[in-house]
Amino acid sequence: MSIRTPLCDLFGIEHPVLLAPMAGVSGGALAAAVSEAGGLGLIGGGYGDADWLEREFDAAGDARIGVGFITWSLARQPQLLDLVFNRNPAALMFSFGDFKPLLPRIRDEQTKFIVQVQTLDQAREAVDAGVDAIVAQGTEAGGHGGTRATLPFVPAVVDIAKDIPVIAAGGIADGRGLAAALALGASGVLCGTGFFASDESLAYNNAKQAAVSGSGDDTERSSVFDMARDLDWPSDWNLRTMRNSFTRQWSADMDGLSQNLAEEQARFNAASAAGDTNIAPVIVGEAADLIRAIEPAQDTLHRIISQAEDRLRRIGRLVGPITKD
Amino acid sequence: MSIRTPLCDLFGIEHPVLLAPMAGVSGGALAAAVSEAGGLGLIGGGYGDADWLEREFDAAGDARIGVGFITWSLARQPQLLDLVFNRNPAALMFSFGDFKPLLPRIRDEQTKFIVQVQTLDQAREAVDAGVDAIVAQGTEAGGHGGTRATLPFVPAVVDIAKDIPVIAAGGIADGRGLAAALALGASGVLCGTGFFASDESLAYNNAKQAAVSGSGDDTERSSVFDMARDLDWPSDWNLRTMRNSFTRQWSADMDGLSQNLAEEQARFNAASAAGDTNIAPVIVGEAADLIRAIEPAQDTLHRIISQAEDRLRRIGRLVGPITKD
Repeated sequence: MSIRTPLCDLFGIEHPVLLAPMAGVSGGALAAAVSEAGGLGLIGGGYGDADWLEREFDAAGDARIGVGFITWSLARQPQLLDLVFNRNPAALMFSFGDFKPLLPRIRDEQTKFIVQVQTLDQAREAVDAGVDAIVAQGTEAGGHGGTRATLPFVPAVVDIAKDIPVIAAGGIADGRGLAAALALGASGVLCGTGFFASDESLAYNNAKQAAVSGSGDDTERSSVFDMARDLDWPSDWNLRTMRNSFTRQWSADMDGLSQNLAEEQARFNAASAAGDTNIAPVIVGEAADLIRAIEPAQDTLHRIISQAEDRLRRIGRLVGPITKD
Repeated sequence: MSIRTPLCDLFGIEHPVLLAPMAGVSGGALAAAVSEAGGLGLIGGGYGDADWLEREFDAAGDARIGVGFITWSLARQPQLLDLVFNRNPAALMFSFGDFKPLLPRIRDEQTKFIVQVQTLDQAREAVDAGVDAIVAQGTEAGGHGGTRATLPFVPAVVDIAKDIPVIAAGGIADGRGLAAALALGASGVLCGTGFFASDESLAYNNAKQAAVSGSGDDTERSSVFDMARDLDWPSDWNLRTMRNSFTRQWSADMDGLSQNLAEEQARFNAASAAGDTNIAPVIVGEAADLIRAIEPAQDTLHRIISQAEDRLRRIGRLVGPITKD
């Protein structure tokens, strides 16, 4: 069982599947499980918290893992990169913001550098910076993202990236999505929602249940949770979650939320602490339709590969053998 | 050169590619060109205009073509179906609204009946109604559409449709998109943007130029043009177009447009008559990145097939031959 692409050589992995660095969800245990199953696990460094990073790198044990950050937040505390490079990660991934001021520090290291993009201009910047790989993220992704959709965005990024491997993200949680990404010219995929409900995920158990029983039809992008969390996200990106009573109340009335913020934040914080997913967000994407069980990440990864192989063989049979012309 | 899927048998066509029935753009000449090149052309019946339909069916000559309608609009003048069935179309496609009241009339005929869906509930309705094929349309499509993205939406619809062929739409304008759609489990694709700039398309020439030089990054969904055209679209769907001065002025200020409607409609109508794409919409989707020339539709279709074959062979080689296990 194996699908070899240039991404496998770049990262020294068996399967061209990366765990998305979901903030607060992709911890060391999940990243290690994905890496040990033959993919590459990235812990979700998110906004950047030294204690969390130390703990989750520890939790990964000897597994070869990487880490991802929210660029604009890490740029406010670049010293965290010292902690990161001390751990000698297999890859460092940035998304959402200007990574260029951080480049000199990164270039001192051997770590593979991945940039996730949501527009073609961002892809051109990543190419100009000489990154090792580009993640082309579609709007169907869970969590923060932009407006482009994966299927037309990936080939447009591939045309810009030329020899730099492109990794497709957004909406991919099974082998059909992996096979489609390869058809589009990607060298592999980055999956968040597909691993959100893994045994090893740090998500609350009821959030995992909500993801497994939920549908992509019931997700939406909004900024209500960023406002509730006092996160000053640039307007280029917002957050895809499952709809719940909080989004239904406020996502079409951000002014109303702003006017009632203190009260709503208290309600939100209490719900978050209690894991109440009627108010706290379940941060998954449209691929929620394609996940069906809380299970070990290894089982998910191996099913993705096995199903992708099956799809590649089936669709390969739709065309005849290679002829001399 | 050939990719055979169940869709080819269903419609008696050589290539599993359908022309999207773009209202006012997919006329008889374009539909005929796509059908004569081995796909299936659908003229864009849109809101339903008897004179336009008669003229464009005439323009298609002897070519075997189908027709598509906006369901909620056709439901207001169901007598147009008599005109349509007199032409013995190869397929009748509905999208956007409740097709069930029209079913008895349709079932009297032999025409293949296609329903386009934007949610999983709509897909379930189509399955229950026993349609011949389901188009799963992603939000990256040009023109009217919903919120789901093609890549995760198609496999979720395939899981619901079971033996009914699923056609992927939204973001597909080259062979990579066709190969990806097949990987996702679709039996073929429906392409609008890919044929918008065809020689045979009824779009204004400067609109074709804008589409060819434009990028998917420069499209967005809004309802400004529906308001400007006095079209009372249900809120489930809005219109993806290239951004222009009209969207930049009004798409974040629908109340403002509403308050200045008479004046703005006069400006809009004058621009539309003059083909001024700074104000009138260029109705294409995110696949604008993937179209590069104004050319005969036959050339586009044959390049899609040839590139898809190449992709299918390449990705088929990523896995080994079928073994006994």
